[in-house]
Amino acid sequence: LVSRLPTVGTTIFTVMSALATKHKAVNLGQGFPDFECDPALLSHVSDAMRSGHNQYPPMPGIAPLREAIASKIAALHGHQYSASDEITITAGATQAIITCILAVVHPGDEVIVLDPCYDSYVPNIALAGATAVRVPLVAGTFRPDFDKISAAITPRTRAIIINTPHNPSASVWSKEDMLTLQAILEPTQVLLISDEVYEHMVFDGQEHQSAARFPKLAARAFVVSSFGKTYHVTGWKIGTVAAPASLMAEFRKVHQFNVFSVNTPMQHALARYMVDPAPYLELPAFYQRKRDLFRRGMSGSRFKLLPCEGTYFQCVDISSVSDLNETQFCQWLTTEVGVAAIPLSAFYGDSFDQGVVRFCFAKQDSTLQAALEKLSKL
Amino acid sequence: LVSRLPTVGTTIFTVMSALATKHKAVNLGQGFPDFECDPALLSHVSDAMRSGHNQYPPMPGIAPLREAIASKIAALHGHQYSASDEITITAGATQAIITCILAVVHPGDEVIVLDPCYDSYVPNIALAGATAVRVPLVAGTFRPDFDKISAAITPRTRAIIINTPHNPSASVWSKEDMLTLQAILEPTQVLLISDEVYEHMVFDGQEHQSAARFPKLAARAFVVSSFGKTYHVTGWKIGTVAAPASLMAEFRKVHQFNVFSVNTPMQHALARYMVDPAPYLELPAFYQRKRDLFRRGMSGSRFKLLPCEGTYFQCVDISSVSDLNETQFCQWLTTEVGVAAIPLSAFYGDSFDQGVVRFCFAKQDSTLQAALEKLSKL
Ligand SMILES: CSCCC(=O)C(=O)O
Ligand SMILES: CSCCC(=O)C(=O)O
Repeated sequence: LVSRLPTVGTTIFTVMSALATKHKAVNLGQGFPDFECDPALLSHVSDAMRSGHNQYPPMPGIAPLREAIASKIAALHGHQYSASDEITITAGATQAIITCILAVVHPGDEVIVLDPCYDSYVPNIALAGATAVRVPLVAGTFRPDFDKISAAITPRTRAIIINTPHNPSASVWSKEDMLTLQAILEPTQVLLISDEVYEHMVFDGQEHQSAARFPKLAARAFVVSSFGKTYHVTGWKIGTVAAPASLMAEFRKVHQFNVFSVNTPMQHALARYMVDPAPYLELPAFYQRKRDLFRRGMSGSRFKLLPCEGTYFQCVDISSVSDLNETQFCQWLTTEVGVAAIPLSAFYGDSFDQGVVRFCFAKQDSTLQAALEKLSKL
Repeated sequence: LVSRLPTVGTTIFTVMSALATKHKAVNLGQGFPDFECDPALLSHVSDAMRSGHNQYPPMPGIAPLREAIASKIAALHGHQYSASDEITITAGATQAIITCILAVVHPGDEVIVLDPCYDSYVPNIALAGATAVRVPLVAGTFRPDFDKISAAITPRTRAIIINTPHNPSASVWSKEDMLTLQAILEPTQVLLISDEVYEHMVFDGQEHQSAARFPKLAARAFVVSSFGKTYHVTGWKIGTVAAPASLMAEFRKVHQFNVFSVNTPMQHALARYMVDPAPYLELPAFYQRKRDLFRRGMSGSRFKLLPCEGTYFQCVDISSVSDLNETQFCQWLTTEVGVAAIPLSAFYGDSFDQGVVRFCFAKQDSTLQAALEKLSKL
């Protein structure tokens, strides 16, 4: 048996969560909340099930949920997607992204990714028979390097994948960044896959600059987001993708033969829950407070904090604490100190090690306190 | 934009369900029950959500559900899969099948499918960059033609996909069929993808012959099944795949970068529900009664009934009722008569039209009666 993905192992998130469980460590590794979602959302699922919403939904998702997403994007970003032809509900953002790639990327194509990036992108590209072209973000700041991005575009470039707010670095693209990208792509045929799952976790008054805000980007973009991240239900595995009708038609051809459709009762529950925008409008303040709590707690430690503009991740420089490489450090921290983290090297093609690890602060205050107590002793 | 799937449209199931809704027809097209599942199963979901099971499950599925599946297969088929390394929970059987294909099929490979077959297989194979080799089932009887299957195997054949009980024909493979397939594959490296989603709908005392029962088949097989079909919750989009550890390792590499994992509360609910085997042990009798009700009702009509050994589908020959081709007939039947059906041509590569359409009898008796009243008037 010859592997289709010979260099791929088990994702770092699975590996670190398993290690955390085994050693009863505080798990600040894999990105998920350890608190509960709004009980009203759970009641909506129970209601939907009792109302008989347990059979196949329409392949692209139930109409009320697609309409809720279209209205939300129109309100937040001023772009009107057609709910019927330009929005599809997916089995999580990860499934949205692989489906985008399989739908538009041909064998022999190139797809640009910005290193470091989420660990599914490059294997997804390989499965499409294409080549990932890794363009590094600026070392240290994690800003896009537009000269390098421009230089990486060739006649074989089919798409570029961006991610803002950015996992793992917690950097956020500015309006100027998006405009620069738009200008670079304008003379090309390159499509954009914009991973915006942390759209509602942008701090200090900055605004999330969705690709949907920039008409000439939106015209070539798949905009991917996640209900799980926004509503604290990562285990429901439900996300969404918006794209112009011509791109969405290709997306749906693949989607219908990948998952076909997505959990019916959860879709009904989310459609009902989305009537109120408060939960996502309040999310920046909610997570900014947790970020600040975590940063304050770490300020007395020997770790050096990197900036955190968005996401629910805080990166820290470990070089003044330890000589171990990032992976060894995370293993040691989990097994010996009792706090799990994720090595940034896991997001690089060449396992580049800069002595930085990522902590997730989407946790109860008490969980963060417990971790901080252990970390500040180092 | 060049399509990856230029010949693919919207699946026939979506098309016919939409037409049925529009014309308020009795929908015997797309395969799903119009009755509710056991309310206990819904309570288990509500309980799981309230107990805090809303975040990412382990990537391959929660241990109790994998253990329940392993025990069930051991009890029914005498093959012991390792719950930790050989069972994975999927976002439905369709997602299981594309993931099998992407995991083991390389660009340039050939994959044998038996025509007619479920409409996702061939596009799945195309997305892997491989070629589908369509081997017809015996015309009229829909039995496997083992000479043709043997003859279709080349050094480039990576896998064969079988489906028993068979959608759309309702035929069921016998023990001899499986042994013959085993003998054919034994001297080859050809893998088996065995789509067994209708495993619990086999009638008249026949037994489902899972690939798991035949050690030399099981050693090269992905065995795919569906919770949605078995427990009347097709909209939950949850299925399972069993395979030897070496195959499963490749499957999981792709699965983790496709959906990553599957709805947590539904997994907990199903694990709890599976403690009792009665629901699936009673399923053959439950559906056999519906089959018989439908066949009896149709016996007075001018349609000719084909045999129905398994699945929840009944195929009928329309040639004595209408001169329309299958697709036109199904459109006419939906819009003018008020009963939706599926043309068998939708399952063939060349849209072969033999004047046969498929009705789904997974419906309340009253729904079947309403359809029968309309159908027997023709
Ligand atoms: C799908 S598990 C990974 C969760 C996540 O987005 C992260 O930790 O980066
Ligand atoms: C995924 S929709 C199709 C349902 C089904 O299995 C069928 O009708 O054949």
